[in-house]
Amino acid sequence: MSRFWSDVVRRLSPYVPGEQPRNADLVKLNTNENPYPPSPRALALVSADIGPSLRLYPDPNSVGLKDAVARGTGLERSNVFVGNGSDEVLALSFLAFFSGGNALQFPDVSYSFYPVWCQLFGIEAERIALAEDFRVDLTPYRGGKGGIIFPNPNAPTGIALALSDIEALLRDEPDRLVVVDEAYVDFGAESTAALVPRFENLLVVQTLSKSRSLAGLRVGWALGQPDLISALDRVKNSFNSYPIDRVAEQVAVAALDDESHFRECRERIIATRTQTTSRLQTLGFEVLPSSANFIFVHHPRAQASELFEGLRERDILVRYFEQPRIDGHLRITIGTDEEMMRLVSVLAELVRAA
Amino acid sequence: MSRFWSDVVRRLSPYVPGEQPRNADLVKLNTNENPYPPSPRALALVSADIGPSLRLYPDPNSVGLKDAVARGTGLERSNVFVGNGSDEVLALSFLAFFSGGNALQFPDVSYSFYPVWCQLFGIEAERIALAEDFRVDLTPYRGGKGGIIFPNPNAPTGIALALSDIEALLRDEPDRLVVVDEAYVDFGAESTAALVPRFENLLVVQTLSKSRSLAGLRVGWALGQPDLISALDRVKNSFNSYPIDRVAEQVAVAALDDESHFRECRERIIATRTQTTSRLQTLGFEVLPSSANFIFVHHPRAQASELFEGLRERDILVRYFEQPRIDGHLRITIGTDEEMMRLVSVLAELVRAA
Repeated sequence: MSRFWSDVVRRLSPYVPGEQPRNADLVKLNTNENPYPPSPRALALVSADIGPSLRLYPDPNSVGLKDAVARGTGLERSNVFVGNGSDEVLALSFLAFFSGGNALQFPDVSYSFYPVWCQLFGIEAERIALAEDFRVDLTPYRGGKGGIIFPNPNAPTGIALALSDIEALLRDEPDRLVVVDEAYVDFGAESTAALVPRFENLLVVQTLSKSRSLAGLRVGWALGQPDLISALDRVKNSFNSYPIDRVAEQVAVAALDDESHFRECRERIIATRTQTTSRLQTLGFEVLPSSANFIFVHHPRAQASELFEGLRERDILVRYFEQPRIDGHLRITIGTDEEMMRLVSVLAELVRAA
Repeated sequence: MSRFWSDVVRRLSPYVPGEQPRNADLVKLNTNENPYPPSPRALALVSADIGPSLRLYPDPNSVGLKDAVARGTGLERSNVFVGNGSDEVLALSFLAFFSGGNALQFPDVSYSFYPVWCQLFGIEAERIALAEDFRVDLTPYRGGKGGIIFPNPNAPTGIALALSDIEALLRDEPDRLVVVDEAYVDFGAESTAALVPRFENLLVVQTLSKSRSLAGLRVGWALGQPDLISALDRVKNSFNSYPIDRVAEQVAVAALDDESHFRECRERIIATRTQTTSRLQTLGFEVLPSSANFIFVHHPRAQASELFEGLRERDILVRYFEQPRIDGHLRITIGTDEEMMRLVSVLAELVRAA
């Protein structure tokens, strides 16, 4: 138990699933699995290695996946919690660490799921304004009582915090849990993963959805000291024992172990981001300095809502947020070079007409 | 909104994910997906049709899967909610319908996850004793104020309720939500799915894990009138927008549409159950009348805990529950004929030695 556990976690006695032995020779009549394989039509959709095993429950602890994450981050298995996308990991973290306590602090312009989880679990939300230049300024976070969460880099701005600033916050606020949501970290920010062994008040959340091209698979994880991980395991085992299916686990491990493919795609996206940024600046756009796989842009002479509609009419979909402070901006994902060329040329037209 | 919604559901303003258009010709720069495919090592694990699409988020509403469930049950898409296994569907149902209200009634001997969800969401639990013969007697459920949940057939007993008894309960208690957990219904009980259009207080929960041989895939669903389904959608969209990944959705649809494979496997299991039951009775076992893919057995002269250990030593794993009323029983999953022959012969030995 740790001082960061919510009352909910403390009172739980999690569900205990039937044993999933690793010895394949057992006659396994303990968890009501079907002895016959799934439909051949279902089997045809996955590799011959995985298919027949689908009749059996997955490993509820996803040890194979935890180990792959540990290998990739230089941490131990006991530092890793895995879930059905980083959204599930974040949701369970809100319940495990922030419910029933003091107000949770996060940036006013940030991932819009944070206030939704607060509402779901009855957590008071304290929104802290971004600085004038849209940066997260960690000064006003000092001296609070509850937890802190922010994405690094932040979304939808794409701006990253320096590792040293986060480290200073962790040092200054040892009794408050700080969750760093690193969904986009691989595109240019510095990960806090390496700080995990030194700070018991740090939880880092990452995902396969962005830099590993696996948004369709739903795998994410949290990194933290074992006390934090066991709180998450308790909540997970009181909610849904088997969130990671057998296909997802194996696909995730294969993707995590392929560092060279990962690096190559990441470098291409960073190069395209640099090029797109400079082309848009030529058109008069202000582009926030992005460390993510998207850019957040504003044009002084063109309405963002109209650019959004104009792009849409030409079959280009970007994100426009009708909300205070950012309704003059568009968030644009970095696609292929070809897609970005098309975007830039349509925006050139629209800006000329504005 | 409906009278069955919990306060939690009423107060939610769910997260709105970025648009997932069906027009494939769009330049999609709105949800920060990676333009490049996942690692070839990951792609090798799934069919060539699915692999490249994994870089994109799945449909958050899983419309294709909902339609397959609707086809299979004779209901409409608006009657279907889908989730990451029936455990997640049940967990979200507890939050959507039972939290913050009156005591929830369920059998004292039943699925052991029910009290865990009560604890997680702060729901008062009222356990109602099974009858002497281990049947669920619905009489004492009458006149309560909160919701009701029971598996049909019940676990770990395997005993089914008659459809007419459930229908009478639904008629007698129109202001109380009744959740019928039909994880095992396909092996011999009558589903309440057909009652959905007539009873607004009925929610039916089913899964692919048992009768479709897909425990390793994590897909389950709830069936109910649209007001109930929209409460579940609100909670889900405030927790995790995309619980069903792209592989799971397609594998699930393929399995659901293969009725003949399903029927064939089910008939084999039922035949094996009949045969195993009579062989065990010959050895002196009492076997509860099962409508599930498991049997619940007791021997008047042999300790269940010792039989459990004896089987385990011979590499046969069954389930023993060290809890009041049922610690003299074993729950045995129905495997293949060969596996059950081996089980029966080891049990014969163990009983002789007892």
